[in-house]
Amino acid sequence: MGILFSVCGFWKNTESDDILEIQYSFAERKGIVKMRKVILDCDPGHDDAFAIMLAAQHFDLLGVTTVGGNGTLENVTRNALVVLEQIGKTDIPVFPGHAGPSTHELVTAPNVHGNSGLDGPVVSPPRRKPEKKHAVDFIVDTVMNNDDVTLIATGPLTNIAAALNREPEISKKASGLYIMGGGAYAGNWTAAAEFNIWVDAEAAYKVFHSGIDLHMVGVNLTRQCPVDSAFIDRLRGIGNHTGEFCAQLCDFFSKGGDAHLHDACAVAWLIDPSLIESAYLHVDIELNGLLTRGMTVTDLRFLQTTKPDADIDLTSTARWDDPEEGSPFRGKAPNTHVAFRLDYEGFCKLLTKTIANYP
Amino acid sequence: MGILFSVCGFWKNTESDDILEIQYSFAERKGIVKMRKVILDCDPGHDDAFAIMLAAQHFDLLGVTTVGGNGTLENVTRNALVVLEQIGKTDIPVFPGHAGPSTHELVTAPNVHGNSGLDGPVVSPPRRKPEKKHAVDFIVDTVMNNDDVTLIATGPLTNIAAALNREPEISKKASGLYIMGGGAYAGNWTAAAEFNIWVDAEAAYKVFHSGIDLHMVGVNLTRQCPVDSAFIDRLRGIGNHTGEFCAQLCDFFSKGGDAHLHDACAVAWLIDPSLIESAYLHVDIELNGLLTRGMTVTDLRFLQTTKPDADIDLTSTARWDDPEEGSPFRGKAPNTHVAFRLDYEGFCKLLTKTIANYP
Amino acid sequence: MGILFSVCGFWKNTESDDILEIQYSFAERKGIVKMRKVILDCDPGHDDAFAIMLAAQHFDLLGVTTVGGNGTLENVTRNALVVLEQIGKTDIPVFPGHAGPSTHELVTAPNVHGNSGLDGPVVSPPRRKPEKKHAVDFIVDTVMNNDDVTLIATGPLTNIAAALNREPEISKKASGLYIMGGGAYAGNWTAAAEFNIWVDAEAAYKVFHSGIDLHMVGVNLTRQCPVDSAFIDRLRGIGNHTGEFCAQLCDFFSKGGDAHLHDACAVAWLIDPSLIESAYLHVDIELNGLLTRGMTVTDLRFLQTTKPDADIDLTSTARWDDPEEGSPFRGKAPNTHVAFRLDYEGFCKLLTKTIANYP
Amino acid sequence: MGILFSVCGFWKNTESDDILEIQYSFAERKGIVKMRKVILDCDPGHDDAFAIMLAAQHFDLLGVTTVGGNGTLENVTRNALVVLEQIGKTDIPVFPGHAGPSTHELVTAPNVHGNSGLDGPVVSPPRRKPEKKHAVDFIVDTVMNNDDVTLIATGPLTNIAAALNREPEISKKASGLYIMGGGAYAGNWTAAAEFNIWVDAEAAYKVFHSGIDLHMVGVNLTRQCPVDSAFIDRLRGIGNHTGEFCAQLCDFFSKGGDAHLHDACAVAWLIDPSLIESAYLHVDIELNGLLTRGMTVTDLRFLQTTKPDADIDLTSTARWDDPEEGSPFRGKAPNTHVAFRLDYEGFCKLLTKTIANYP
Repeated sequence: MGILFSVCGFWKNTESDDILEIQYSFAERKGIVKMRKVILDCDPGHDDAFAIMLAAQHFDLLGVTTVGGNGTLENVTRNALVVLEQIGKTDIPVFPGHAGPSTHELVTAPNVHGNSGLDGPVVSPPRRKPEKKHAVDFIVDTVMNNDDVTLIATGPLTNIAAALNREPEISKKASGLYIMGGGAYAGNWTAAAEFNIWVDAEAAYKVFHSGIDLHMVGVNLTRQCPVDSAFIDRLRGIGNHTGEFCAQLCDFFSKGGDAHLHDACAVAWLIDPSLIESAYLHVDIELNGLLTRGMTVTDLRFLQTTKPDADIDLTSTARWDDPEEGSPFRGKAPNTHVAFRLDYEGFCKLLTKTIANYP
Repeated sequence: MGILFSVCGFWKNTESDDILEIQYSFAERKGIVKMRKVILDCDPGHDDAFAIMLAAQHFDLLGVTTVGGNGTLENVTRNALVVLEQIGKTDIPVFPGHAGPSTHELVTAPNVHGNSGLDGPVVSPPRRKPEKKHAVDFIVDTVMNNDDVTLIATGPLTNIAAALNREPEISKKASGLYIMGGGAYAGNWTAAAEFNIWVDAEAAYKVFHSGIDLHMVGVNLTRQCPVDSAFIDRLRGIGNHTGEFCAQLCDFFSKGGDAHLHDACAVAWLIDPSLIESAYLHVDIELNGLLTRGMTVTDLRFLQTTKPDADIDLTSTARWDDPEEGSPFRGKAPNTHVAFRLDYEGFCKLLTKTIANYP
Repeated sequence: MGILFSVCGFWKNTESDDILEIQYSFAERKGIVKMRKVILDCDPGHDDAFAIMLAAQHFDLLGVTTVGGNGTLENVTRNALVVLEQIGKTDIPVFPGHAGPSTHELVTAPNVHGNSGLDGPVVSPPRRKPEKKHAVDFIVDTVMNNDDVTLIATGPLTNIAAALNREPEISKKASGLYIMGGGAYAGNWTAAAEFNIWVDAEAAYKVFHSGIDLHMVGVNLTRQCPVDSAFIDRLRGIGNHTGEFCAQLCDFFSKGGDAHLHDACAVAWLIDPSLIESAYLHVDIELNGLLTRGMTVTDLRFLQTTKPDADIDLTSTARWDDPEEGSPFRGKAPNTHVAFRLDYEGFCKLLTKTIANYP
Repeated sequence: MGILFSVCGFWKNTESDDILEIQYSFAERKGIVKMRKVILDCDPGHDDAFAIMLAAQHFDLLGVTTVGGNGTLENVTRNALVVLEQIGKTDIPVFPGHAGPSTHELVTAPNVHGNSGLDGPVVSPPRRKPEKKHAVDFIVDTVMNNDDVTLIATGPLTNIAAALNREPEISKKASGLYIMGGGAYAGNWTAAAEFNIWVDAEAAYKVFHSGIDLHMVGVNLTRQCPVDSAFIDRLRGIGNHTGEFCAQLCDFFSKGGDAHLHDACAVAWLIDPSLIESAYLHVDIELNGLLTRGMTVTDLRFLQTTKPDADIDLTSTARWDDPEEGSPFRGKAPNTHVAFRLDYEGFCKLLTKTIANYP
């Protein structure tokens, strides 16, 4: 039972999965284990929809907060309500936050997510209304009034940065922050930058400099999580309403090719740490480059390998402990757990089981 | 014989190597094949020394030009003369060029190459003097008065950019430019930038925007070319004067760990294209970033793979021909052949055979 | 009486001053004129102290909000309470806001304002406590629930930008924003940038791009408002407690020489528009320069004069209405009333009369 | 006579002008005074034409070098030959230099100078050809082989920077450099930057950091030198061929309004230092700003005045000698004599007398 206690919010993909799950479910009902308290800040968005589904089942999801990003604040707030309604989780409140970045104008991505921000399945408008409380106030109050809230952010970091500005203590009070954003090598929106970070680079700068315990799932990881026809068949094969809803989301999302379930990876990492291998590295945000604005500049220098096919050797002895070694110009202290390798099959199993548990 | 003609300056590492080599050497003596005309612009520098050795044997090396970089202009010019003297190639002229970058102050790397820029073996001062003609004039005149000169640059691109400024036509007249510099993902001098490009980023900008046929060997490639004890043993095992000289260079160079024979890779690529696999991509130079100044921003977006251990799938169907596919924000036209995979064993064989041919 | 109505919050320095003042005071008591509703956002700071004194007497000062800038948030909040206590205005609430900039770290100016942020006079700690409500919430709620609140900001624009982010409508709902910050030509903290803007350039960018009706009092104006011994004598000569308090503030403030009563000018402009001559120009904030970060880039091109001693001809016919005239590269639309000439004597009279009215 | 010797290349606009001039002319013929050796680097350009006329009469003009700027290199070289032909100075050689900036693409100003770069008067193509020697080689060789060559540059600083790169010693060997470019407060091509500096900001950076004795005539000075109808009448009133040629140049140049004889001011300053009042200040070049790229950032902080109509008090005791005074963040050492006040009438007399001496 001790082991169960240590795996709160954890789902183990071994052969003994089913037993473990039964035990876990039982233990939870009995109050022996408590689910991890989580706030999910997002801008749904197709891949955010999957992030919501994972978070709503595996965590004590205290609230979903929304931020202008993939779509306008109005759209992404409606989409969050839609997704929660589709999976029957109408008890989870939705708090709208900032409509756009703190400094620059909002840029959205209708080319990826359609005009609604969640094109694909035909759904009725949500019956629920979002909460009146501002997302940033909800985040600040909830984190400060609880000892163990973990934040997940799968959109631009506008709300998270605003919360850190409003109450700097949340960088210590929160149990950590998992983000989908950036990349260890490259971008998607520009050659150097990923969309979420690029859209509000100043907010990202604030977050990466805040000292919060930070886990970054960037596009270098999420390219290992493709939305292809096999994946869509698997969703449709679940056979329930949610599976079909998800399949229709992916039908639209993958139309342009090259689609990946970015945001869901960040949630999956928190559910089951064994799904992702990472390295603890220094990451900073470029605010000034003409070509590189919004890049998550990741210091990979101590992880280089001589193997032609791999660019990172996660087993190399990182020499951060010994900054004097190597060249004197190297090495600010690590501040980010950077995701590198995904267990895609494990991820798919987690996702399909989760969806199967919904209506 | 036709095949020999097509492999000018080419050294094939197959089983029939020896036969081919004998044939080639015979053909060359008879004037049946002509060696490739090359100018090597460099800042020796330990790895530049190996670049000179490769170039002096496999090409019609019209001249070595020097540029402030790893060391001061005075030092690197002396070092170029030293290396040519050690290998008995005192007929190859050395032309000093710019002492430092076109815009900013020179930064050298004594931490890597010692105070002389070529610490290690004890050598007498060179008996020869460098030429009076300025490197840039030599480059411009030689390229403009020949139809097929290939440029190799293994230091900061100051001289090459100045030559392009003096005579923009050399971007078309030269048969191409092979550089050691930059990187497809990451840097070495900073997290984002490699030393040669960082030192004179404005010069690099000029070169990458010039339209010259450009091959880039960056630190993503050269990390596959380690200078370790096995490698040094191999050099020492050659048993001749040059082998011992090279071994002593590497003894010093590898003292700090993490040493790679960067510059030699660029020359080896031109000698034997089969040693390096590459992709034709868009590369631009960041001049403005606070964290990324001097970064060779490489657009890898169409080469992403889903494999966790590899970041680039060179076999993927690059969609540059179809800029309309994918997202509308993607894709400036490729301008650079970017090196990705090195045949290290082939490289070592080329190098040791070359050294064995010297005194 | 009609004229009085149009000069709400207005103090006229003509010969008929006294009569006007009596009339005004009478009219106000009778409710015939209503004072202008104002929120003052500041970081006291010696010159902020004078800004508070002016605002507390000439406006319906709904609240003082504080922001980290000249000193830490804790210090400037205490200093605001101190100043209000010294002048007997303990009914005006003080709301602490952001402790530092939205993106970068706070830099304070102890070299100018001492360790307390208000060194000089020896004062007891304030008896009052600041309000619990966050400055940004107070600003948003007050502006949105009133039709005619004018904002004055004499510190970094962190709170104002956060309010604009929280509720973009306040750019239209507020009656305008008067700031002390920036400069039409030059800076004080750097050669190009003034302290308040430099400290939170991202916040300034947000404000200048918000569309709010903006009046900028920069260091080009405030250098006309020196704190010299004649000025200090004048304060001391008033003969009351507040005059002595002010004199002691200025004794400290002017110790290093080159002191100016920056912040008070912004308030004075709103009290009596005739004290400052201005031009309506395009101003933007530089976020990227290495030398110019935080500069208020002011487009002066249509106001150039041929007179050697003046750089601006405020009487020139600005040709903004005709963007086609002149060179095609000229002219974004004006967004800021930029202060150029101060009636220093008028300002001094306003200030001393105001102080004379305090205990 | 001693006084004459000290005023080489000097033209005094006092009442004793005529006597002095006669003495001077006599002394020069007798070899008692020697004219100042000058190279003029320019991109004619209407105002460059006047610069050539001044330089060709008042100096020993060793050569005119040309640079892409106001027009293409081909056009500005032809225009230089045209101007020299019009004034009968066909013995002065013209050396074409760089076609465009060292780093970025050339931008020209056809909106100001017409398609030819010197629209207005109808002239025959020049009979002379330019020299074969490259401008940069001419500058380097001439400066290094003479002890007292003064450089004047009235276009982008591309050639001058290339010469400094080729031979850094010319920063000490040359007697100084007078440029038209930049501005102490503001720009003309952008709100912050003047055309010449903006076009090749990297070259300007090199020049301002080179240590050369530098005199800067920026747009803050040249706005005091308007080309208006009174000025054109004065030119036409001279009554000779050159006067009419100049008048026709100005007819075209002033069509758009707001024309100033920028480049001629830099030459006039060297001819008669009393025509311009200046201050010795720190000036640096912004390379990174989005709004301020190419700005000549001038540190005016110690010259501020309290007078509302003047922004600079040239009589103030500049405290550069005492960097400890004032705030600790102030003050890099001055590197540039910055022009502030023009004696326009004196300038006009110099110019008309000069033109009157031509055919």
